Amino acid sequence: MDPEPDLVIDRSPLPDGLDERLRRQLTFVAEADRLKTVLRASPLAAADRRENDAEHSWHLALMVLLLAEHADEPIDVGHAMSLVVVHDLVEIYAGDSPVFDAAAVADQAEREEAAADRLFTLLPDDQATQVRGLWDEFEAGESPEARFCKAMDRLEPMLLNWLDHGGTWQMPGATETTVRAREAGVVSGSTTLGDAVGRLVDEGLARGWIRPDAATPDAP
Amino acid sequence: MDPEPDLVIDRSPLPDGLDERLRRQLTFVAEADRLKTVLRASPLAAADRRENDAEHSWHLALMVLLLAEHADEPIDVGHAMSLVVVHDLVEIYAGDSPVFDAAAVADQAEREEAAADRLFTLLPDDQATQVRGLWDEFEAGESPEARFCKAMDRLEPMLLNWLDHGGTWQMPGATETTVRAREAGVVSGSTTLGDAVGRLVDEGLARGWIRPDAATPDAP
Ligand SMILES: [Ca+2]
Repeated sequence: MDPEPDLVIDRSPLPDGLDERLRRQLTFVAEADRLKTVLRASPLAAADRRENDAEHSWHLALMVLLLAEHADEPIDVGHAMSLVVVHDLVEIYAGDSPVFDAAAVADQAEREEAAADRLFTLLPDDQATQVRGLWDEFEAGESPEARFCKAMDRLEPMLLNWLDHGGTWQMPGATETTVRAREAGVVSGSTTLGDAVGRLVDEGLARGWIRPDAATPDAP
Repeated sequence: MDPEPDLVIDRSPLPDGLDERLRRQLTFVAEADRLKTVLRASPLAAADRRENDAEHSWHLALMVLLLAEHADEPIDVGHAMSLVVVHDLVEIYAGDSPVFDAAAVADQAEREEAAADRLFTLLPDDQATQVRGLWDEFEAGESPEARFCKAMDRLEPMLLNWLDHGGTWQMPGATETTVRAREAGVVSGSTTLGDAVGRLVDEGLARGWIRPDAATPDAP
């Protein structure tokens, strides 16, 4: 990681005379544009390309709004939307760590911690603390909202995999056991949605879109 | 507009046995993937391509979260995030209508109305009404949240134009008057942010990134 990278705003510094607090906020908003360039492993259903983190985060916010009734505990929809809107921001510097890629996952926590320190401190101090708190809450997955948001973060790529007839289920590290572990993340936030995903996985196994554990990945 | 297009879900129908309400919700969530393919005129700051509606909607949600303190009236941040998350959904069928493109804007309302009828009715009836209500509220721009969200919808592309040293300010229909009209949309929701955008426009004019009214666009 480059210790002192250029910021997006450096290409066109804001005019003089702006209030310092607003300058920091707009600097962060400009830097956040980078999330649109962080590619995930998931294939879009509606186009032949991979999904980026910004559009993924939007999709989760829409799902929170429409599927909140299926949360096992009552949730504050607005608060949950805040969690998903910020949940992947650290990937601007840390990159995406595909869940079926063990090497990427190995040092993920460390890379994301460093990224959070660098990114969130662009904001005014109180908002750096606020956004850091939202990210920590999502990561911990202990509040009802965080549990449900993590379920959405598992459900969305599984729906994309279903629509793709495989998607990341076809990655070398993915077999029934690892896919079932993702399913469990949905169940943790919503029994109803976990049950629906279980049907997708059962059917995905039956159709050969998910490998059974016994099988080894095709040689490259 | 094709009267009976395929749905995204048709490529991989959901398994039997799902509850009908959930089936409709997931059908809508799958169809919403298309928003990631609707391109806007705005250039990203962080990559050499145009922005799509899904990542734009995410950016607005982040801005609502971080800039709400600048709203002229107190706003409910969660409600405002709901508005921006759904505000562009009808463009899945109606397409984007760039503000500086008079031909696209001419029949925009009619195209979007037809798109709303088609898209939102994929949802269970109560949620179709809910999402339609959010979209209508945003479009009307009369609630404090809608006014602020519309200000974000104006501010974000102006910031991208600033970072691009021109962006859509260079489109044939854009001159100081039309750009100032967009600035007014920011002022309507936030005096503070409207003032900041005014500085970007003043400076953009001074640097030649925005054409004065007297100038005619370059011949094609
Ligand atoms: Ca992630």
